[in-house]
Amino acid sequence: MGRPRTPLLDRERITTTALELVDSDGDFSVPRIAKRLGVQTGSVYHHVDGRDGIVELLRERVAEAIDSATLDPGRPWEASLAAWARSYRAAFAAHPRAIPLLMTSPVRAPRVLRQYERAVTLLLAAGFALADVMPLIIALENMVLGSALDLAAPEAMWELTDTSATPALARALDAVPPGRADRSFELALAGFLAQAEAMLAAYEV
Amino acid sequence: MGRPRTPLLDRERITTTALELVDSDGDFSVPRIAKRLGVQTGSVYHHVDGRDGIVELLRERVAEAIDSATLDPGRPWEASLAAWARSYRAAFAAHPRAIPLLMTSPVRAPRVLRQYERAVTLLLAAGFALADVMPLIIALENMVLGSALDLAAPEAMWELTDTSATPALARALDAVPPGRADRSFELALAGFLAQAEAMLAAYEV
Repeated sequence: MGRPRTPLLDRERITTTALELVDSDGDFSVPRIAKRLGVQTGSVYHHVDGRDGIVELLRERVAEAIDSATLDPGRPWEASLAAWARSYRAAFAAHPRAIPLLMTSPVRAPRVLRQYERAVTLLLAAGFALADVMPLIIALENMVLGSALDLAAPEAMWELTDTSATPALARALDAVPPGRADRSFELALAGFLAQAEAMLAAYEV
Repeated sequence: MGRPRTPLLDRERITTTALELVDSDGDFSVPRIAKRLGVQTGSVYHHVDGRDGIVELLRERVAEAIDSATLDPGRPWEASLAAWARSYRAAFAAHPRAIPLLMTSPVRAPRVLRQYERAVTLLLAAGFALADVMPLIIALENMVLGSALDLAAPEAMWELTDTSATPALARALDAVPPGRADRSFELALAGFLAQAEAMLAAYEV
């Protein structure tokens, strides 16, 4: 028999397996990846830079789905940021259980850092003060990722067994229009953009 | 020997153990709770309403730290909501790994539902339309919980090994003022409140 054309183990397959584990269990471990791929744990370490290296491969994989072309300095910054935020939310909504893992470990993946570079460049070109740029990006990300988690929530998120105990909540829930998650996200996004515009305007005073 | 004054197994201890597991591993299972408490799995089920029941006990435990007195209809709604949001963020920042679990299972805990009742009542008294109340609360929660996860992030969240690849990002990171997480949260909160005020004003047109 000749050698298989696809290597049994490579970074792509390790990343895919790690993401499957995160999607189902909320976390991964190198031994579990090895077990699933039918190899020794040491063989996995041969291909990646430890557990942290796998986290960065996961980050690149999830972030691949973000359309970074939205960060186009040729367009008004509000439209660019809004389009980026929507694409960012969709990418992470596909892997909600990866969010806590990726939000709590440092970003090292070069391709992801280049996406931040584009966002920073866009905000500087729009006229934001250097010290305000990262707080703005972080505020936008927190809102995007909180909202991505909400997309993974059940449509009926509040279950009232005794509506007499919470009559106002019962009425408010009955009045919720369809697509509550999108509506809440767009409301928060509009607030963010208005706040950013107010900051820009305040520089000029 | 007499009977121990503290029962070996009760809902409080089950909740505490489940929260310890979530804090360390991101999730819990009934068999693991039983193992840690040195009892049979079936004994745990005897005290709680299944896995979902434990999730609701966790929700009550984490939400206990939220100061619901902040939702005071006697104060201006902006101040009430802002104080609630800050307290809510602090409560969940103490248990960031519980956030995905609690955000993706339906809310049934009576004490937590009563807190929503207070928030809904406050917003209705402030003049918000019934259909806007839940989208506003959800938008605020997404921002609060995204920001609570960010509080669990390392202070140095971006690790640039080659600053020449991302020069603007490097400059923006150098310019970040201390307390970036708080600053980002307050920025998002101000945006949210401004957006809510704009909605109120628009009703009157």
